[in-house]
This record gives sequence, structure tokens and C-alpha cells, in this order.
Amino acid sequence: MEQPPIGDVFGEMIRDAYAVHTGVGPRPLAGGRVPRPVIEVIERDDGLINGAPADHYLAEPADWQPHDHRALRLCRGHVLDIGVGAGRTAVELQKRGMAVTGLDTSPGAIEIARRRGLRDTVLNTVDAYASASVRYDTFLLLGNNLGLLEGPERAPVFLDALARLANPGARLIAQGTDPYGTTDPVHVSYHRRNRERGRLGGQLRLRLRYRLLATEWFDYLNCSVEELEALIQGTAWRLKAVDDGDRPYYTAVLELAG
Amino acid sequence: MEQPPIGDVFGEMIRDAYAVHTGVGPRPLAGGRVPRPVIEVIERDDGLINGAPADHYLAEPADWQPHDHRALRLCRGHVLDIGVGAGRTAVELQKRGMAVTGLDTSPGAIEIARRRGLRDTVLNTVDAYASASVRYDTFLLLGNNLGLLEGPERAPVFLDALARLANPGARLIAQGTDPYGTTDPVHVSYHRRNRERGRLGGQLRLRLRYRLLATEWFDYLNCSVEELEALIQGTAWRLKAVDDGDRPYYTAVLELAG
Repeated sequence: MEQPPIGDVFGEMIRDAYAVHTGVGPRPLAGGRVPRPVIEVIERDDGLINGAPADHYLAEPADWQPHDHRALRLCRGHVLDIGVGAGRTAVELQKRGMAVTGLDTSPGAIEIARRRGLRDTVLNTVDAYASASVRYDTFLLLGNNLGLLEGPERAPVFLDALARLANPGARLIAQGTDPYGTTDPVHVSYHRRNRERGRLGGQLRLRLRYRLLATEWFDYLNCSVEELEALIQGTAWRLKAVDDGDRPYYTAVLELAG
Repeated sequence: MEQPPIGDVFGEMIRDAYAVHTGVGPRPLAGGRVPRPVIEVIERDDGLINGAPADHYLAEPADWQPHDHRALRLCRGHVLDIGVGAGRTAVELQKRGMAVTGLDTSPGAIEIARRRGLRDTVLNTVDAYASASVRYDTFLLLGNNLGLLEGPERAPVFLDALARLANPGARLIAQGTDPYGTTDPVHVSYHRRNRERGRLGGQLRLRLRYRLLATEWFDYLNCSVEELEALIQGTAWRLKAVDDGDRPYYTAVLELAG
């Protein structure tokens, strides 16, 4: 098989999901006739493949998980939504009158977030954006985007970039997943294999695929709260609270050390 | 990435889809907590990847497409449902008092079809089963399984195997898709690429993937009615009627030459 070219997988997918959602614009068809749901395809480096409907990226507040609503109540001041995607939560914060900026590395995602009404968007990495002079009071890593910490090497670099963008007393609200409650042998073996390679058990190595495109392989971290505490040691951030009312999902609140 | 091992992809998928559908037995979980819909992942040899919810394999008659109902009304006598899958249509025919055998090459599919009440099942290829002494009056290739003709080489071999299993005057009811109505450049290019390689435009080269497993690469044919007529030239079968009321899908009725 031909190797799929690298491209804006997430953006292409979100564009199609939005077209199916609204019924407007060109959208993928089954046999040229029946609009089909847009599916996100995720490959893991052990060969595991998983498809998941993409429509949750466009879900209205009424359809959110309870922990999403609880996370939003923790926002204050100037908010940076990291990995804003289609703007699911940023648009809602904007509606509530908050000052919110949506950051994403996907041009397609930013395009859709803007089309859905999000006014302040940044197409950039956190690292490059950290040299900007703007400052934030709240950073959001929602939708499991605590995963963007990637692992022990990347986490302090990422958290340092956020510290440079932070006002004094800023907080980071991050949704993660503790991967170790599973008994599924496919995942248990994967965690063991990762540890044997000197990685955290839930340090997933993934790529996304959509239609003809693929992303590069990247690390995405599912970690326990204990692992998170170890990762932030030596950074400017302190773990302030954990909401684990929807295990294995949790929301961690980190605060900039005073 | 590791190459996924070859296995009963369809069977594993149907087993999980059935577990999610019924809420009984082990089923794939999102983060160990929320049951997720089972998704069929299909790769094409140009790198195209597509995910589609698997629950249509378990759909009740009320949720079928109109052409499915019309196809079933064409059944008579002893019926062989080829690629019976989870028994979606065979179980319904059995309920209507018809003599129906479900054939599939997937052990997992046969297991689920039996669990859903289908009494007469065959785990075999059409080719190997053709040496059996049993005879049928109707052969079903539903759910786009006209695709099992694969292409110009395989079609006459496959149709000959069915002829050996056929009573005089037997009919073959086959659902196909005319692939050439699309304007999607991804598909138009693929059809051209196929023709440049001496293949029919819609002669798809595919493999299925589910979790850790993959199938071998196989041909699966989407062809126009004109192409179908050319393919059956020289076989024991004649095209008797075409129901194309749900274009680009169609149901072809073939009859054994008298």
C-alpha cells in the first residue's frame, strides 16, 4: 500500500464533520448518496486501530459530559483554550462573556472555529506563541488534552512555555485519563511494553488518519494523577486540585507557584 | 509500526458490535467506562482509509434500506445467503418460514448468526462448498456483496461454483453499487489509476482492520450494470432484471440459463 501523505488530518476531518453536522457544503457520501458520519481513525504503534465518531468535537453543551461543565466553571480572567479544535468550549465561554483565545496547530480546525463564531484565534504551537507579549489567567487542556504533555521529556518544556504566557496566579485546567484501570489485555500488554522501553505505561504513540492523509507519529499521554505529580516536579506549576468524579477521566487544576 | 497480524477481523468486529447492541458480554470501552460504537475500518490500496459504524450489520427490518426489502421479496425455494454476516437478512427469512442457509468464511460471524437464532449455517468458501450435494433455488449477495465477484478473473469461477450448487431455474439476487456517478476527485483518480493498471475502475483493493487484526488485501468489485453484463458473458448465468430505484445502488437478478 502507498504511504499516506502527511497533512492537516484533524482539520480535514473537522471540516467534513461540520459539513455533515450543518448539512452545508461538500461532504463525504456513502456511494455518492447517503451522508455518512465522519469517523476519526487513530493508529497506535502496536498496530491497534480505532475508529470513533467525530461529532463529539461539535457537541452542544447539552450533550457534554458532566466533567466538561465542571471544568468550565473553573475558568477566570483571560482564557487560552489549547487545542481549541472546532471551538466547542471556546465558543461557549465567549457566549458567557469571557475573554477567550483559541489556539490550535490545525488550519482546518481554526477555520471551522472561526466559522462557528470564535473571534480570537491563534494558529500556532504553544512553544512559538510563548514569545508573544499577551498573558493569560487560565489555560485549558480539555477533551483529554492533558495528553499534549506527551511524556517526561516534553512535559516540562510545554509547561514552561505556558508559564511564560501566564499572569501571576494563573491556573491550568487539564482533562486527563488514568489508563491503568483497564483489564483489557490489549491495553495491559501495551502499558507493559511501553515500560520495558523506558516510557510511561500510558505514553501512547499514535497517528491520526483521515481519508488520504496521515499525521506524523506523535506521543500522547494518558497518565495517573501520581504520574502527573511527578511530571510537574521542578516546573513552575503546582497541583492544586483533582476532580475525579468521572473516573477514569479526571480534571487536574494546576496553579503557577507564587 | 508493527504490521497487524492476519485474523478474523470481521468476526471480532461483529462479536463486539453484537455485545454493544445487546449490552451483554465483554465489549470495547472508551477509557474503560463508556461503551463506544464499533467501527469498521477499511483501507484501500491508494492509502484511503474509511471508518463506518458496524451497527448496520445488526439492523432490524424496520431500519433497512428500501432496496433490502425489495430484494427479499424476490426469494423463493431453498435460499443460500452468501456472506451471511450476523444473519441480518437470513434470520428474517427464517422467521418468514423460508428454508435458508447462511454461509460465511468468518467463524465469528457464524457464531453470532447462530446466537441470533439462525439454524442452518455453513462456515466455508463458496468454492469448497460447491462440492456439497445440496442444491439451492436462490442465492443472495446482499449488502453490496456483488463485490465478491472481485473482478474479471474471479467472477466466472465464483459464478461457476454457484451454478454447481443451483437447482434448474435458480436465481441470484445481488446488490451492487455503480461507482462511476461520483465527482469526488479521490474516487475519480482511483478509478483512472485502476484502469491504467488493467483493472476495472471500481475494482477496489481493500483490507479490513479491527483493533489489532487485519485481513489480507483482497479485491472487492463495485461495477456498473454494463460491466456486470460483460463479466457474466460465457457463464451459466443471464441477467434477468435490474432494480436501480436507489441509485447508485442496484439489485441485479441473474438466472441460470435453461
